[in-house]
Amino acid sequence: MTDLADALAEAVGPLHVRTDDLSGYGTDWTGRWVGHARLAVAPGTAEEIGKILRICVDAHIGIVPQGGNTGLVGGAVPDGDVVLDLRRLDTVEVDPVAGQVRAGAGATVAAVQAAARAAGLRYGVDLASRDSATIGGTVATNAAGLRALRLGDTRAQMIDVEAVLSTGAVISRRTGLTRDNSGYDLPRWVCGSEGTLAVVTAARLRLLPEPADRATALLAFPDLPAAVAAAASLRREPAIEVLELMLAAGIALVCEQQALPAPFPVDHPVLLLVEATAPADAAGILGALVEALPGVADAAVGVDAADSRRLWAYRELHTESVSRVGVPHKLDVALPLPAFASFVTEVQPAVAQGWPEAAVWMWGHVGEGNLHLNVTGVDPDDEDLDDVVLRMVAEAGGSISAEHGIGRAKQRWLPLVRSAEEIAVWRAVKAAFDPTGTLNPGVLLPK
Amino acid sequence: MTDLADALAEAVGPLHVRTDDLSGYGTDWTGRWVGHARLAVAPGTAEEIGKILRICVDAHIGIVPQGGNTGLVGGAVPDGDVVLDLRRLDTVEVDPVAGQVRAGAGATVAAVQAAARAAGLRYGVDLASRDSATIGGTVATNAAGLRALRLGDTRAQMIDVEAVLSTGAVISRRTGLTRDNSGYDLPRWVCGSEGTLAVVTAARLRLLPEPADRATALLAFPDLPAAVAAAASLRREPAIEVLELMLAAGIALVCEQQALPAPFPVDHPVLLLVEATAPADAAGILGALVEALPGVADAAVGVDAADSRRLWAYRELHTESVSRVGVPHKLDVALPLPAFASFVTEVQPAVAQGWPEAAVWMWGHVGEGNLHLNVTGVDPDDEDLDDVVLRMVAEAGGSISAEHGIGRAKQRWLPLVRSAEEIAVWRAVKAAFDPTGTLNPGVLLPK
Repeated sequence: MTDLADALAEAVGPLHVRTDDLSGYGTDWTGRWVGHARLAVAPGTAEEIGKILRICVDAHIGIVPQGGNTGLVGGAVPDGDVVLDLRRLDTVEVDPVAGQVRAGAGATVAAVQAAARAAGLRYGVDLASRDSATIGGTVATNAAGLRALRLGDTRAQMIDVEAVLSTGAVISRRTGLTRDNSGYDLPRWVCGSEGTLAVVTAARLRLLPEPADRATALLAFPDLPAAVAAAASLRREPAIEVLELMLAAGIALVCEQQALPAPFPVDHPVLLLVEATAPADAAGILGALVEALPGVADAAVGVDAADSRRLWAYRELHTESVSRVGVPHKLDVALPLPAFASFVTEVQPAVAQGWPEAAVWMWGHVGEGNLHLNVTGVDPDDEDLDDVVLRMVAEAGGSISAEHGIGRAKQRWLPLVRSAEEIAVWRAVKAAFDPTGTLNPGVLLPK
Repeated sequence: MTDLADALAEAVGPLHVRTDDLSGYGTDWTGRWVGHARLAVAPGTAEEIGKILRICVDAHIGIVPQGGNTGLVGGAVPDGDVVLDLRRLDTVEVDPVAGQVRAGAGATVAAVQAAARAAGLRYGVDLASRDSATIGGTVATNAAGLRALRLGDTRAQMIDVEAVLSTGAVISRRTGLTRDNSGYDLPRWVCGSEGTLAVVTAARLRLLPEPADRATALLAFPDLPAAVAAAASLRREPAIEVLELMLAAGIALVCEQQALPAPFPVDHPVLLLVEATAPADAAGILGALVEALPGVADAAVGVDAADSRRLWAYRELHTESVSRVGVPHKLDVALPLPAFASFVTEVQPAVAQGWPEAAVWMWGHVGEGNLHLNVTGVDPDDEDLDDVVLRMVAEAGGSISAEHGIGRAKQRWLPLVRSAEEIAVWRAVKAAFDPTGTLNPGVLLPK
């Protein structure tokens, strides 16, 4: 044990400091980011985190907060730093009268969803990594996911965040007030700051009424413009909560990798997965909306939960299926809807020109113009490929990171979308919160 | 003309610099805050504001942004500073396909509401000062208002903010993307920072579908606990969009000042104004909810728009009626709902003990625990009264400023609800954005 390990053991108990077998902390989920953890410490309270931060500030050692380690941009990968394993902070307390849940940073999204369901309510954020992704991680990255179109991102669910500043002080509004405009809202600013300003230890989140009925449909389209036009029309319908786009190549990959039958007798270039919720007769409402939609080549409307699961599988298994092909370039962009179809059409030949061996996989939350673009068959470290794609995105007025954040992966391209003056203020703000640069060093801020 | 006026005249044109008749800029709406404007400048573009900021930074002169001047905490009152009159920035552009509006900082809330309505949509923020309050001011204070219970506060409507940094640089995401997690979200942080971090010049805001039907009811209760229990139950109903509490004294004052008939044949201690929206039969839905509610002593359910306006008048005329009695102490607090009734009951005798001549007026957005508390008949500068009330609020776990902000009025009590460590970070953040302290000096940060 080193002096550092001894000091940390005194703060949290020796059982909660780990100095060997650290590889699980050092590598991200995709295998793209491989780092090295000096040691890992697993605190049980916000106060213990305060002690850990003071120790690391004094020792000039970086701290990397980690939850489910499901991030996709290297934002939780250490580089000789101490990993702060937050998974012991996993309490989930539902207040059904207030319609709120208080969840520890280490509670999984699935645990919060289950607790809400048990109270007849639901949590508005859902994503495919729900069984591993934690509340702390989703707050730190402002995760959006599958229902953000209608229910909002993590920020929209936040009543309050409890976080620990680099000084060790805990900030929190404590009382679950939904209305409080008393000065700068630091807890809210922490959302989306990727662990660089403070360590999220808990969040109080709003819960929503569970809709009485829901229905799912898979719609096939002859081309991208028809599918995007349908999405633009459907997203204005309050009953529509999910609008996911998939392409023929991705569907074929999922069917092959997961041994699933093809969704339709013939292949279609573009599919939309659509879900409607309603007080009653969601299938009828969805059916009527689909009926009125031009350009639909084929449609499968689910009539029960088993149907719904079967249709959802095509979408949810995309990420895993692509990872089976190889370590992907993971890009997560957003486009203005009017530019969406042309971008998807033009990015394929642009990649093929430089990397004829590349396979491009695209799917995403088309209701918000959010496109997940993965590329396999190319060296994952070849940043020239990312450069080609992200310049096209910026030129189309899009975002270089729609929901995954910047992490270590996307810093190089921030100047495409943010001015030097603005990034200068970011650096000053980072110094205001974390003058020693202890919190998640090397993440978010461009080098 | 001074050198300063000459420099500003060169930046924006001499017609838009005003050096005399400045009293309208120096005094707030309530008459409580009387300041002094050095001069007023009315820019026409964000770029002109950048020039003005650079001139004032160099001259070491403060800048106070002002819109409709309807703030209630002295947050737009100058103290020898330059007033930045933003009312020329009043463009309103609706994008009905995206369901968004881009509004200049000087556009009134009513103008945005009207433009939305013309496109068959609506803007989610509504407040009694809608005809004067501007988008810039409501973004800078994160105004909430009458429908925040269901539709959220100004922050919840924000797609993007355009703002000018103290360096003169304009920050904005431009393209109206609803999904963008590319680094610190400075435009969003500016919301609620009361003009101290950057000058808001425009906002892109979401618009919502106009509900097909709505209905209003005025409900009478025999006591506070019954009314609060009813509010706690109704706020869980998705159809309920408005939940406003009024007391007998306020109703009597409004009737007297505005020559209105009493709402019920007999006086009731507590009233709730309730509004429901629905795709159809809102009156039927509201009637059924009221029917099932225990403790209702009397009820008036509006059947048409004229009824609705008549019932709303009792609530909307509160602020103006109180101001006719004298310059009020204006307190705007939030309480956890379980503490709401006992606070309202106990604050009256606590004030009477020290100020027997005081009249206490209370009403507010009870669905969110938000209580507007005004006191007349007492010297407006007697801060000991505010101290008594705000200490009671803090002890009950409440907020000293639910929606009006801190301004110049509430700084003294920030330490009741925010730690010294947290406020130290605020100061560092302020310096990061505005190292010369040019932006709205003396506002928000405790002296």
